[in-house]
Amino acid sequence: MRLAVLGAGAVGRSVLDLADDYGHSVTAFADSGSAAVDPGGLVPDPVLRRKERDDVVGDDDPEAVFDADYDVLVEATPTTLGDAEPGFTHVRRALEADRHVVLANKGPVAERYDDLRALERESAGEVRFEATVGGAIPVLSAIHDFGPDHITAARGVLNGTANFVLSRMAAEGLDYEHVLREAQDLGVAEADPTFDVEGTDAALKCVILANVLNGGGFSLDDAEVEGITTVPTSALDLAAEDGRTVRLIGEARPDGVRVGPRLVPQHGTLAVSGTQNIVQLETTHAGRLNISGRGAGGPETATAVLSDVSRLE
Amino acid sequence: MRLAVLGAGAVGRSVLDLADDYGHSVTAFADSGSAAVDPGGLVPDPVLRRKERDDVVGDDDPEAVFDADYDVLVEATPTTLGDAEPGFTHVRRALEADRHVVLANKGPVAERYDDLRALERESAGEVRFEATVGGAIPVLSAIHDFGPDHITAARGVLNGTANFVLSRMAAEGLDYEHVLREAQDLGVAEADPTFDVEGTDAALKCVILANVLNGGGFSLDDAEVEGITTVPTSALDLAAEDGRTVRLIGEARPDGVRVGPRLVPQHGTLAVSGTQNIVQLETTHAGRLNISGRGAGGPETATAVLSDVSRLE
Repeated sequence: MRLAVLGAGAVGRSVLDLADDYGHSVTAFADSGSAAVDPGGLVPDPVLRRKERDDVVGDDDPEAVFDADYDVLVEATPTTLGDAEPGFTHVRRALEADRHVVLANKGPVAERYDDLRALERESAGEVRFEATVGGAIPVLSAIHDFGPDHITAARGVLNGTANFVLSRMAAEGLDYEHVLREAQDLGVAEADPTFDVEGTDAALKCVILANVLNGGGFSLDDAEVEGITTVPTSALDLAAEDGRTVRLIGEARPDGVRVGPRLVPQHGTLAVSGTQNIVQLETTHAGRLNISGRGAGGPETATAVLSDVSRLE
Repeated sequence: MRLAVLGAGAVGRSVLDLADDYGHSVTAFADSGSAAVDPGGLVPDPVLRRKERDDVVGDDDPEAVFDADYDVLVEATPTTLGDAEPGFTHVRRALEADRHVVLANKGPVAERYDDLRALERESAGEVRFEATVGGAIPVLSAIHDFGPDHITAARGVLNGTANFVLSRMAAEGLDYEHVLREAQDLGVAEADPTFDVEGTDAALKCVILANVLNGGGFSLDDAEVEGITTVPTSALDLAAEDGRTVRLIGEARPDGVRVGPRLVPQHGTLAVSGTQNIVQLETTHAGRLNISGRGAGGPETATAVLSDVSRLE
């Protein structure tokens, strides 16, 4: 497949880098201010070097991407809330041109799922978004394979930053502010960690899970969200005395989405450590199914994008 | 889809019971000595009651199954080694009639994978076998979705009986013989537990994984297999002092299949407890992926069969 990749962050760059490994080529690549287009397929290294050196990816205008020869638009621009723009417009333009769309950007799938599916119905193109939930973890494929009708709930740890902070607080007895600064120094937390520590990122992923399980109808407004910013170290100490610990757990059920700090068994399935993610599916006839792995990272998330692309063939 | 189900053990009976939930019907159902056939779809309860009461499923000869109207043959007869008969012949007859085949029987997939694929190439029917590895755990789908080329190894705990015995030995400090009898009393271990405790069952599953990852070429003869019958309780005690425990770990790599008792971290990902199964996939770009859940059981394994059937449409 020929890919047009929008977004030159960690995920977009890794898609450019790994596409060839999956038998695909990138014919257009854009960041917010520039684009590189080559109908024969871009060579990754020069583009990535130029991005690093000059903060541009090529000589074209980003608009050139939509006129390029491509089969699949990969939407990997930053997640935005509310109208999910400009991501949503990118997706709309590709679908209106009867192209497939693969999203790593959570915005359009969490905030405008029903609009997205309506556009898809009018298009010869398909929409896929495995990369939006749990990075490398193939949770949406698992739900699809299992049949959403046979899954009653999905819950799990879906934000690596919050999980790292809680794991470290519990292991070292350090307070939230201290561990957050440490995580920022290590590059695990962003300079502005609001999205992660206040639960918004986990909530968006749970909203996407709720949409997939229920056939749409959910946006961030429907989620009850509580972050980890007020979890005291003393609560973790108390939990540990009882063989438990605290994790930021998100849950998607037919009746809604909830995200918040929860007590879980210290060595139990949900107590993944560090930046790991886990999703637990409650099934009608087969008990609980657990899938865990790296929930973020450029190459990890790019594999989810490229697996989606491969499934379009 | 219309299913012909061969085998009236726990899995076959659950397929009959749950098929309707998945939008399918069972038009023929056979145990080793009898069959029930109804082109309009069998009603499960009378058939299952008759099996329980009289140990026959209907008035027809098992041979009638092959003349029935069906789209998919579900092969759920007991696993046999070597030539994997009579399962292999059942599969051959369905494929030669251009029908699809879904297997819960590990024999033909582990022992005669290349023969199976050769028959599939000559048929309009397809062959699927998610249920043969890890019960409810959708490990083969995950490998398929991820792309076998991007997975370098698969390992895990694939036998619930052996795992139950090792878990209990470690938790209670009891010896192997004692725990095995307890497991037999609980119905977790069979009266003849050889297949499970000597590692054969786990090895067959790993051989299937090796065949899927490598495109065939493996049978049980290629596996190095060691069971748990000689693991002393003292070894578990020593391991515990070091924060570790023992699990029967199977591994499939391009160069072969190995199954044996291994030391693993006591609270680590591979140390699932009780009858749980886990599979860990090593990926080229996305680290380790872990999938765990119920590795056996009638309804659990039947969901894998029925998901396979749904994927054929």
